Amino acid sequence: MASSALQISMVVSSRSSDFLGSHSFTATNSLRSRNVSLPGRMPGVCRCVSAPSAEETAFKTKVARNANMAKLQAGYLFPELARRRSAHMSKYPDAKVISLGIGDTTEPIPDDITSAMAMRAHSLGTFEGYSGYGAEQGDKKLRANIALTYYKDLGIEETDIFVSDGAKCDISRLQLLFGSQVKMAVQDPSYPAYVDSSVIMGQTGLFQKDIEKYANIEYMRCVPENDFFPDLSSISQADVIYFCSPNNPTGSTATRDQLTQLVQFAKDNGSIIVFDSAYAMYISDDSPRSIYEIPGAKEVAIEISSFSKYAGFTGVRLGWTVVPKELLFADGFPVAKDFNRIVSTCFNGASNIAQAGGLACLSPAGLKAMQNTINFYKENTKIIVDTFTSLGFNVYGGKNAPYVWVQFPGRSSWDVFTEILEKGHVVITPGSGFGPGGESFIRVSAFGHRENILEAAKRIKQLYQ
Amino acid sequence: MASSALQISMVVSSRSSDFLGSHSFTATNSLRSRNVSLPGRMPGVCRCVSAPSAEETAFKTKVARNANMAKLQAGYLFPELARRRSAHMSKYPDAKVISLGIGDTTEPIPDDITSAMAMRAHSLGTFEGYSGYGAEQGDKKLRANIALTYYKDLGIEETDIFVSDGAKCDISRLQLLFGSQVKMAVQDPSYPAYVDSSVIMGQTGLFQKDIEKYANIEYMRCVPENDFFPDLSSISQADVIYFCSPNNPTGSTATRDQLTQLVQFAKDNGSIIVFDSAYAMYISDDSPRSIYEIPGAKEVAIEISSFSKYAGFTGVRLGWTVVPKELLFADGFPVAKDFNRIVSTCFNGASNIAQAGGLACLSPAGLKAMQNTINFYKENTKIIVDTFTSLGFNVYGGKNAPYVWVQFPGRSSWDVFTEILEKGHVVITPGSGFGPGGESFIRVSAFGHRENILEAAKRIKQLYQ
Repeated sequence: MASSALQISMVVSSRSSDFLGSHSFTATNSLRSRNVSLPGRMPGVCRCVSAPSAEETAFKTKVARNANMAKLQAGYLFPELARRRSAHMSKYPDAKVISLGIGDTTEPIPDDITSAMAMRAHSLGTFEGYSGYGAEQGDKKLRANIALTYYKDLGIEETDIFVSDGAKCDISRLQLLFGSQVKMAVQDPSYPAYVDSSVIMGQTGLFQKDIEKYANIEYMRCVPENDFFPDLSSISQADVIYFCSPNNPTGSTATRDQLTQLVQFAKDNGSIIVFDSAYAMYISDDSPRSIYEIPGAKEVAIEISSFSKYAGFTGVRLGWTVVPKELLFADGFPVAKDFNRIVSTCFNGASNIAQAGGLACLSPAGLKAMQNTINFYKENTKIIVDTFTSLGFNVYGGKNAPYVWVQFPGRSSWDVFTEILEKGHVVITPGSGFGPGGESFIRVSAFGHRENILEAAKRIKQLYQ
Repeated sequence: MASSALQISMVVSSRSSDFLGSHSFTATNSLRSRNVSLPGRMPGVCRCVSAPSAEETAFKTKVARNANMAKLQAGYLFPELARRRSAHMSKYPDAKVISLGIGDTTEPIPDDITSAMAMRAHSLGTFEGYSGYGAEQGDKKLRANIALTYYKDLGIEETDIFVSDGAKCDISRLQLLFGSQVKMAVQDPSYPAYVDSSVIMGQTGLFQKDIEKYANIEYMRCVPENDFFPDLSSISQADVIYFCSPNNPTGSTATRDQLTQLVQFAKDNGSIIVFDSAYAMYISDDSPRSIYEIPGAKEVAIEISSFSKYAGFTGVRLGWTVVPKELLFADGFPVAKDFNRIVSTCFNGASNIAQAGGLACLSPAGLKAMQNTINFYKENTKIIVDTFTSLGFNVYGGKNAPYVWVQFPGRSSWDVFTEILEKGHVVITPGSGFGPGGESFIRVSAFGHRENILEAAKRIKQLYQ
């Protein structure tokens, strides 16, 4: 029973540990087994046939499981991390485990922003302030402010902006938009939601265990040898190219020249770029913060972004997607019109309270407060970069991103993960969890309270000096 | 140009009128036309070739438009209503138009609930109160409270509940779960999102204009002659049956006996029921409020619900879906495990502030306050029912739902819509907008301030007495 319960919890994909994983399924199964294997205890009932297994007695519908869901691999990254962390804490109950694994913000949301959300909540209790359904595309004023703040002089208008409940949700809505017949290209390593949502949508073949890749996806290898920018000439076909800069997990940021190459590639091949700029405000140098800084990008690119890592909105849920009206399908139909239909049918707008928070984020005080929070995390990043650099590691990322990418040549990412957890009680993320191109790297997140970052740095120094 | 702009705005599907519909596309097109047709005005440029059309000059990607998106019909119901309302207001600028069309709540959210949300917003600004990513499945305490409040003694547990940003969003996630290979059955008339999300997912054939139905959907006719309960024996195949009770739009509520038949049908045929109970708290009699009141339903049914119409959360965004662990695909795989994977990959949890509001809704004070709001809308419903009844119409619904379904035998729903708008300045919803089974009916929503409901009743009496 223990091993079957474990198997079940491995298949369940969740970042959190409190879901219906092993516990509740096990409970149900054992209840069922008891019901059938101990008939003598049921008053007035005597079954003289041999007891069937729980599997045999359970009612099954005739609806076939979606074959695309069955393609998904069991060991989804973040729940596996959570499972290993829990196991470690059981083994060392007195250890103070520090998590620099999942990229979750830790610092309070600035007051100007929380006050605006609280005020909006209160106003919903008044006749004057109450409002019901908002536009699925988001509040007009927020859309206009996003356009003005992040896309001024780039030709992106209010009507090109779709406010959402976060980039992860919009990635999935974009997959619905494109449907099952497109072929995707993705940076390797990359944020797992791009690939998993593509699998769910039916765009891929089966997972090929030997190469750790799904069939019918173009994996664009991004490693130090190519400056984390893919060799575009090696791509055979790519309808939709997912590209994240500053990158999660490597922390690398594409230069203007590199993004110009990417846009030119899309133009030459008729591809659509989905550009994930969720970490753009972490950029310190003159790397482009938006794909639309590249001339011609409006005709080939969608951009997704988020307030999560700027304002600590990971739990508040607010993001946006830009679909320029200039972006057209092969038949000339505007992509924005189909995306609008997706948003109208499959979504009902972000929470009005979160949107009030978004407006406050974009006020002068809000922008300053967000930048202060970002600067705090960037100081953390510097501590992490300096720690690994001083130990002689090859360290990448960190400069324009809250992620540090550290190379352990010739070693397995999971082995390094285990070593740092076992000996330092620090959780990081094994690079191979982001795709085969991440093997022999680890990702260290800079989201954390300062004292935790300093303590983690101390332990890592002790471990590797 | 005017007619092409109109066409564009008809294709765009949005409830709201402030999107990129006719206006921005028209502007873009005319800008493009000007650029190419008036070259003489561009300083230093002289083009001596004949001017190509905007269509010809625009860059197109080579990505094919998703064929499923192209199947969607142009005249999505609610934007069409908004368009006609706008046209009417331009024609009669002094008229006080009353909208009983779209089912949007109008009364303020009770104080206990808004205060809880404001307090949560403020706490996010503190070190003690801040939290980042929540569980994708929702806050554990909220899941437990939903199970306790709405499913006590029905065998539904905390782990069966998935908290969401609303029922409409979960309908779309359920489509992703089931994939493109299932055949759906749906009440006719029904809430448009069921059918449209099925079309987007690729489950249907083309729209058949003569019968106003998509191919490969089972439309289950619900009319007064069958007490708004479908003839289940006429269904040839149905993998997933969408069933809404109390019903939107007819306001009818299935009896215990009818739901027992439905569950038995699903058992006999191996179908999965998606039961939409978003109006359950409007039930006054002993009709079941949950499908799980029917024995055996846990093995064949999913239930979706929402705080929208109870607490005025249409803009706050909070709902839930119940996927019992007993519900299995044909191969024995639990549906809940795949839905958990969908939620984990395509969603990041409802806003933590909205979830704090949900917890307050389920406190004793919150439940009482929600019931007061519901009672207010039900008083509105009675005014509407009495108005049409006194005029001699056949009136359905209203008793257990905020919707009144009025029959105009032999007349087109859109003609009646136009008549009531033109002569009474009142917006209702034409029944045929919910499917061919709604023809010759209108839906009147009871969501409105009391004075507007009374004024609308007065005008309708003047019109039809």
